[in-house]
Amino acid sequence: MSQARLMDGTALARRIVERTARRAAELTGRTGTAPCLATVLVGADPASVTYVRMKQNRCRTAGIVSRHVELPAETSTGELVAALRSLSQDPAVHGILLQHPVGEHVDERAAFEAIAPEKDVDGVTFASFATMSFGGPGFVSCTPGGILRLLDAYDVDLAGKRAVVVGRSAILGKPVGMLLLARDATVTYCHSRTRDLASVVREADVVVAAVGRPRLIKGEDVKPGAVVIDAGYNPGNVGDVDFDSAALRASLITPVPGGVGPMTIATLLEQTVDAAARQLGG
Amino acid sequence: MSQARLMDGTALARRIVERTARRAAELTGRTGTAPCLATVLVGADPASVTYVRMKQNRCRTAGIVSRHVELPAETSTGELVAALRSLSQDPAVHGILLQHPVGEHVDERAAFEAIAPEKDVDGVTFASFATMSFGGPGFVSCTPGGILRLLDAYDVDLAGKRAVVVGRSAILGKPVGMLLLARDATVTYCHSRTRDLASVVREADVVVAAVGRPRLIKGEDVKPGAVVIDAGYNPGNVGDVDFDSAALRASLITPVPGGVGPMTIATLLEQTVDAAARQLGG
Repeated sequence: MSQARLMDGTALARRIVERTARRAAELTGRTGTAPCLATVLVGADPASVTYVRMKQNRCRTAGIVSRHVELPAETSTGELVAALRSLSQDPAVHGILLQHPVGEHVDERAAFEAIAPEKDVDGVTFASFATMSFGGPGFVSCTPGGILRLLDAYDVDLAGKRAVVVGRSAILGKPVGMLLLARDATVTYCHSRTRDLASVVREADVVVAAVGRPRLIKGEDVKPGAVVIDAGYNPGNVGDVDFDSAALRASLITPVPGGVGPMTIATLLEQTVDAAARQLGG
Repeated sequence: MSQARLMDGTALARRIVERTARRAAELTGRTGTAPCLATVLVGADPASVTYVRMKQNRCRTAGIVSRHVELPAETSTGELVAALRSLSQDPAVHGILLQHPVGEHVDERAAFEAIAPEKDVDGVTFASFATMSFGGPGFVSCTPGGILRLLDAYDVDLAGKRAVVVGRSAILGKPVGMLLLARDATVTYCHSRTRDLASVVREADVVVAAVGRPRLIKGEDVKPGAVVIDAGYNPGNVGDVDFDSAALRASLITPVPGGVGPMTIATLLEQTVDAAARQLGG
């Protein structure tokens, strides 16, 4: 039985981070200022703490300074917005990452919109979504951007292909669909209310699973030869795709972990250096 | 042979405009200020002149004051942006409509973005697109909004249905797809690069044709019982759907003219009164 080729996000991300580190060093040498990412964490959710620490570590290895802002769990929307506005106006900060979730009592959208678009290196503002939807000079959401980089690295031609996105979240499903549409794919958005999801997925030349339901997509739902991108991340390192059965039908597939995940962080670092270069005159 | 029921946009639009006129009169009586729509026209393209005049006439019959700004064809992006910013800041203006096209030498996007979101009653700004994509208190693009009103008026249940949008323009295809997605349809975007468009359209429970190619969608492409919305407008009062053959298969279909067109203007007027009510404290 044939087996899909793995899309090695870890290796591609490493190359992107290496190049980003060289650009960061060059920028720092030339301007005297290192690129700086501000990370904002509300509360002390253990998973969020881990994510933020990992991002800070990666920043360090890439020559990006990180400035960490920790706010108590009871921070109000107004206080969070004020903190983000302050970072948006601070010339020493080039990129801003608000770790989510931010807590049920906070208006997350108001917080995101307090991030200046030119510092929105995580691609969470409406302005960034519009950029992804209509083209333009802004930033992309990191996971969608990383997915497109991965598709490009494996020479997946998207024009005219049927792409099915399973999931419609604001920073993953919706933007990745818009990016695929911009590349001339015929894009279908599926979600929890989609009837007979399997039959829709079977139409896809490219499947992006981005819904957070463990092993929702089975091998029998995959069109033979399709490209399968698993952007799901569920407890126990399990994706939204049943990897073993899907790998028997797909031509290319991302592993979990080691597929989409590393690309997300690589995109964050690269966009932070992009932002710094623009702000410092690079 | 069975024949589809017509979706009478003219009649529905009339009811909406009548209710809008009552609201406008009430608002004017209570606040002493009539709702005001500013229309901005660059150059003297005959079709644009006609559209703007028609919109002004409709405003008048609905008790909405219109203020017309005519700019010469050679107006630069900077001049147009300045004019729109001035209207955005003018408390006597509640809604702003920039008639497009604005001329090849003008950055249309920069012009749109100079419209304050709270006055963007035509739904052309990125902020309005984000509102349509993620929900929120802003305005919708008028044709997409009108299409949803028409679907609602004919009790078309969208949840779980397959909707196919043919076209991906910034103020029609993309936003109507987002509005359908928000209603829990499974949405597919098709466009000029889509392969075998007919077979994709045949999957649709709801088709929205929004591409500007006369009679592109044939009756044989329509799934029996589907709802067919023709948002195309081509010379000679011809839509994007071959009406005669499609009407034999569809359950509901919009005529051209008299379907989507009147709904667009009704939505514009209604949103102008919404904007005025919010700004005047209604």
